[in-house]
Amino acid sequence: MSRKGQRMTEPDFPNAEFEQRLIRAQRAMKVAGLDAMFFTTETEVRYFTGFRTLFWQSPTRPWFLVVPGDGKPVAIVPEIGAALMAGTWVDDIRTWASPHATDDGVSLLGDALKPFATVGMPMGRESSLRMALTDFDRLRNSLPGTCFTDCTPLVRDLRMVKSEAEVAVLRRICGMASDAFGQAADLFHIGQPLSEAFRAFRIALLQAGADDVPYLVGGAGPGGYPDVISPPGARPMQPGDVLMLDTGATLRGYHCDFDRNFAFGQADETARAGYRTLHRATEAALAVARPGVTCAELHRAMQAVIGQDTGDVGRYGHGLGMQLTESPSVIGFDETVMRPGMVMTLEPSMVLGKGRIMVHEENLVIRDGEPELLSRRAPAELPVLEATT
Amino acid sequence: MSRKGQRMTEPDFPNAEFEQRLIRAQRAMKVAGLDAMFFTTETEVRYFTGFRTLFWQSPTRPWFLVVPGDGKPVAIVPEIGAALMAGTWVDDIRTWASPHATDDGVSLLGDALKPFATVGMPMGRESSLRMALTDFDRLRNSLPGTCFTDCTPLVRDLRMVKSEAEVAVLRRICGMASDAFGQAADLFHIGQPLSEAFRAFRIALLQAGADDVPYLVGGAGPGGYPDVISPPGARPMQPGDVLMLDTGATLRGYHCDFDRNFAFGQADETARAGYRTLHRATEAALAVARPGVTCAELHRAMQAVIGQDTGDVGRYGHGLGMQLTESPSVIGFDETVMRPGMVMTLEPSMVLGKGRIMVHEENLVIRDGEPELLSRRAPAELPVLEATT
Repeated sequence: MSRKGQRMTEPDFPNAEFEQRLIRAQRAMKVAGLDAMFFTTETEVRYFTGFRTLFWQSPTRPWFLVVPGDGKPVAIVPEIGAALMAGTWVDDIRTWASPHATDDGVSLLGDALKPFATVGMPMGRESSLRMALTDFDRLRNSLPGTCFTDCTPLVRDLRMVKSEAEVAVLRRICGMASDAFGQAADLFHIGQPLSEAFRAFRIALLQAGADDVPYLVGGAGPGGYPDVISPPGARPMQPGDVLMLDTGATLRGYHCDFDRNFAFGQADETARAGYRTLHRATEAALAVARPGVTCAELHRAMQAVIGQDTGDVGRYGHGLGMQLTESPSVIGFDETVMRPGMVMTLEPSMVLGKGRIMVHEENLVIRDGEPELLSRRAPAELPVLEATT
Repeated sequence: MSRKGQRMTEPDFPNAEFEQRLIRAQRAMKVAGLDAMFFTTETEVRYFTGFRTLFWQSPTRPWFLVVPGDGKPVAIVPEIGAALMAGTWVDDIRTWASPHATDDGVSLLGDALKPFATVGMPMGRESSLRMALTDFDRLRNSLPGTCFTDCTPLVRDLRMVKSEAEVAVLRRICGMASDAFGQAADLFHIGQPLSEAFRAFRIALLQAGADDVPYLVGGAGPGGYPDVISPPGARPMQPGDVLMLDTGATLRGYHCDFDRNFAFGQADETARAGYRTLHRATEAALAVARPGVTCAELHRAMQAVIGQDTGDVGRYGHGLGMQLTESPSVIGFDETVMRPGMVMTLEPSMVLGKGRIMVHEENLVIRDGEPELLSRRAPAELPVLEATT
């Protein structure tokens, strides 16, 4: 059913962006021998359609997309999403009344996949299945002639290299987060509970132009912090503390992902030296981040400066875009080769002592020649707020 | 490995809360003949452990939890999460360096599940699998003696009835959102782009005490809006528009989920009549929302007032708690019986004209006798901002 409706919001990109994504996908599908690809997850549906809504947070309804080897994607979505999907470049939108007592889109999906012998779907690293396993089994049983196969590498390769339109959005959100971090001296202070520092920073990000702040983690403690994934507690900031905030704010569904460190009152030598080391590690990676270099080589460049194992964090950076973290990983076993247009984070970390780590992060685009920094470069020395002189 | 560490944040609930959840779960597991349950998703891991982090937004690493028929849960998590997990009531925390080249926790998980013959996991309505399908297949192949079976109804029944500690958090976040909506006349105005209204409301929610605003959708248009799941566009609000904002703000990981409607300048009779009908529909549901009543009966009570089919939205409310929407659904086919402690939304909607709908929502707790409203009751008449008199 085709139903071009009235659009309530402006599309994130012109149709040409989605046409290019589809052309690249179908070229790769031909090489891989795939007749179609099938997706259940937000990022992949949005990548091929432009369909963007926070409504994915409700687990109630499944959403499906079929990308055939020829022709445009087919959306199989709950009726509640029909109007929004009709505003995208997709023509073929098939809907059902969801939630449904007995058939939540499975037979519609089966009909859409029936023509295809080999169907790719993400089954590998970083993937998940956003539909009931019982429904997925029912689907496979209804299509005995269809081979479902893993297309993770294909989709990763497509999404890893960003278009200039995508880079432009990422540049803007990274600039906004840089602006918000630039207000640190006004936002954060001794005696402020960490939870209030988070609140102030969220508001500053929104005021700087971010659409949303889906990700904000951090820590604060004497000369470092124990952890980089915790929500904030109520403990007030104290002189000698180092505060780290790591934010994934979004604009039009694209994330920044970088952090900044601030000391309060004064910083001990361990914290200052650690900060300098991490800054030099990023410099070392920026110096080699060129097309043709692998993730493993980026990792080695940073590890040579840090002189420690990667530790709890597990890696020194990753891809960035529609998701807070995307493939590849800056880690010793990842031999992914840098290509122009790849947007990456460099995220070296180190252990400063027991229960005390430090992490540093920048966002960049791989270019022919020097990379383009998207985050405003952190200062070479640990900044001290409310310095006691 | 047991590793009780230093806690950076206060736990969301005392240990007794998690002990009670486990006791209820294990009682139900015995009845269902389950030797263990196995989870991959944020909500279920948090429900049984208290482990709360936004880091789940990164798709890179899988996280696993095993709930045995006897004894405490076993967490199998990436090393990066060990410190935070050690702050929960869980003793048995098994970690690996993730991301991993060849084995992202699968063999650790296999070891943990090996003792159990029948393992439940969510495979039904509203569930998803947050691990690679190839890894899940590898897991099943490594455990030929293990039967994996669906435990969706068991987990749904557990989570549906909230403890008083959970209700207390939900009451607070609903109160904060009510406070923010109460500032509408200061926040929203004619000429303001919808995107700026969203921004102002996000900031108001944070200032009212919300930890986060993961969900905010809405619409604005002449006498109604075309859709209830869209992100905001740049169109400025105009006299005669009806603005609807629907928010899932959070406190300690628990959501409110309700909306409010506001007209600008003046409201036409269709909008005012529609609003009154939806308000009366909610009244009708509140009048029958008692223990023993089914979702289907709640749905019927609202539909009798509205006199329309449920339409695109598909249902008139749902469960609420750790997720923006939870089971059950207020819909004709859902025969779930209301029990004291269930937290629900009532969300009647109606079509006012072509491309023009209206939706209304309240949050409540089922009690012995009258339900307790968590959202501050919407006024009986459509509020008009900047009224032209």
